[in-house]
Amino acid sequence: MAQHLTAMLESQRHQPVALAVVRDCIAACLDCGAACTSCADACLAEPMLAGLAPCIRLDLDCADICQATARVVGRLTRPNKASMAAILQACIAGCEACAAECSKHAGMHAHCRICAEACSECAKACQALLDVMP
Amino acid sequence: MAQHLTAMLESQRHQPVALAVVRDCIAACLDCGAACTSCADACLAEPMLAGLAPCIRLDLDCADICQATARVVGRLTRPNKASMAAILQACIAGCEACAAECSKHAGMHAHCRICAEACSECAKACQALLDVMP
Amino acid sequence: MAQHLTAMLESQRHQPVALAVVRDCIAACLDCGAACTSCADACLAEPMLAGLAPCIRLDLDCADICQATARVVGRLTRPNKASMAAILQACIAGCEACAAECSKHAGMHAHCRICAEACSECAKACQALLDVMP
Amino acid sequence: MAQHLTAMLESQRHQPVALAVVRDCIAACLDCGAACTSCADACLAEPMLAGLAPCIRLDLDCADICQATARVVGRLTRPNKASMAAILQACIAGCEACAAECSKHAGMHAHCRICAEACSECAKACQALLDVMP
Repeated sequence: MAQHLTAMLESQRHQPVALAVVRDCIAACLDCGAACTSCADACLAEPMLAGLAPCIRLDLDCADICQATARVVGRLTRPNKASMAAILQACIAGCEACAAECSKHAGMHAHCRICAEACSECAKACQALLDVMP
Repeated sequence: MAQHLTAMLESQRHQPVALAVVRDCIAACLDCGAACTSCADACLAEPMLAGLAPCIRLDLDCADICQATARVVGRLTRPNKASMAAILQACIAGCEACAAECSKHAGMHAHCRICAEACSECAKACQALLDVMP
Repeated sequence: MAQHLTAMLESQRHQPVALAVVRDCIAACLDCGAACTSCADACLAEPMLAGLAPCIRLDLDCADICQATARVVGRLTRPNKASMAAILQACIAGCEACAAECSKHAGMHAHCRICAEACSECAKACQALLDVMP
Repeated sequence: MAQHLTAMLESQRHQPVALAVVRDCIAACLDCGAACTSCADACLAEPMLAGLAPCIRLDLDCADICQATARVVGRLTRPNKASMAAILQACIAGCEACAAECSKHAGMHAHCRICAEACSECAKACQALLDVMP
């Protein structure tokens, strides 16, 4: 997936300081957003749906925040440092909340286990970008 | 617009502490997101497009962040305090960056003046919600 | 809500044939998107959650399609007729599916009744724009 | 990217008729959405920006439609056939419009060439899913 992402980023005039870190952050946000969307949907198909309401809610939040973060980070032209840092922080918060909730159901539901992994990796990728931001 | 928003929020089981503040924040985020989308588009129709590239970029960021914020804030069931606070902070940062850039063009372009207003009001509405969050 | 929308649209160089129809369509999409997001969330708080899974699913679809439609329609500069017509058709389909499901629960849940209304109005607003598109 | 997507889809109760086609469609939509977001941004950094306004506009439309399509298609639980078909049709229309415009600039700008490829592949992936939909 996102097979065109690296080529696209490399084709641009405004090269970020750490292209690989930027690319990994975008890819992780897209992956996590899709995982959260799927996990919420998979929860809706579970027979014991009631206990998964908190998971669905945090999945939906995380998917929305990841999607916005992927877009903001994907824009290399004249980024605004304050808003990029703030959306990365929001993405980390959303991913951590979702990972914590999904982890509780990881033994019972594979989709929650996979989603928790995607969220944890996304939080790390966002933090890695925050760490190298000039 | 959003004529169903108040009725919808009042119909829910989980009533937030300050329903009017929540509603105003959602409405401001939707309004600002639409204004930023329109401003970016209006910039593309201007003859002197080159000087508006920073404005377009910040419009697009702000629209994406506002949209995600409207969704997260619109969910009243079991919100996660850390991620709600973080996305509100990101929305304030995105709105302030966009308002500052649009203000520079406000004398020349009505769409930039209107967009700057929408961004400033959205930042205030997000801050108001942060201030009353339990 | 969207108090800046009319002023923003009127400020633009590329005036659509039927500005009021365009504005009403954008406003209806934003309203419906917010209503669907809230309805899905309100469903998650209901004690009899299991029967609402189809409703939540269609709410989420409808919210995503409405949001994309509001953006595409909100861009007045050089629209592509085929993709604008197609996203309007998709929005009508998404709204009709969601309205049909929410209507089944309208007697029991106020949020489903309100959401069905928002969906029906949005479908009409999209059809009205399709009808006047040049 | 989307390394968790296949595992996530395979973990769900509601298995689609053609899982690989569904997965490829979601992956293509996410890839294309990211490519269009990047292409619009890369256009903003070009010295000859004016001629790229139509490209930016169609990039933005396509990104929004792809994102909504990825979400709708990613939900396997009780899909609504009419709205899924309609959003796939809209995605094909958006991708074709963007590919056609980007192709005009492909010789001059690598980002437009890559974006046109991503759009063409996404349109094909959406059509492939339409073709196998029950």
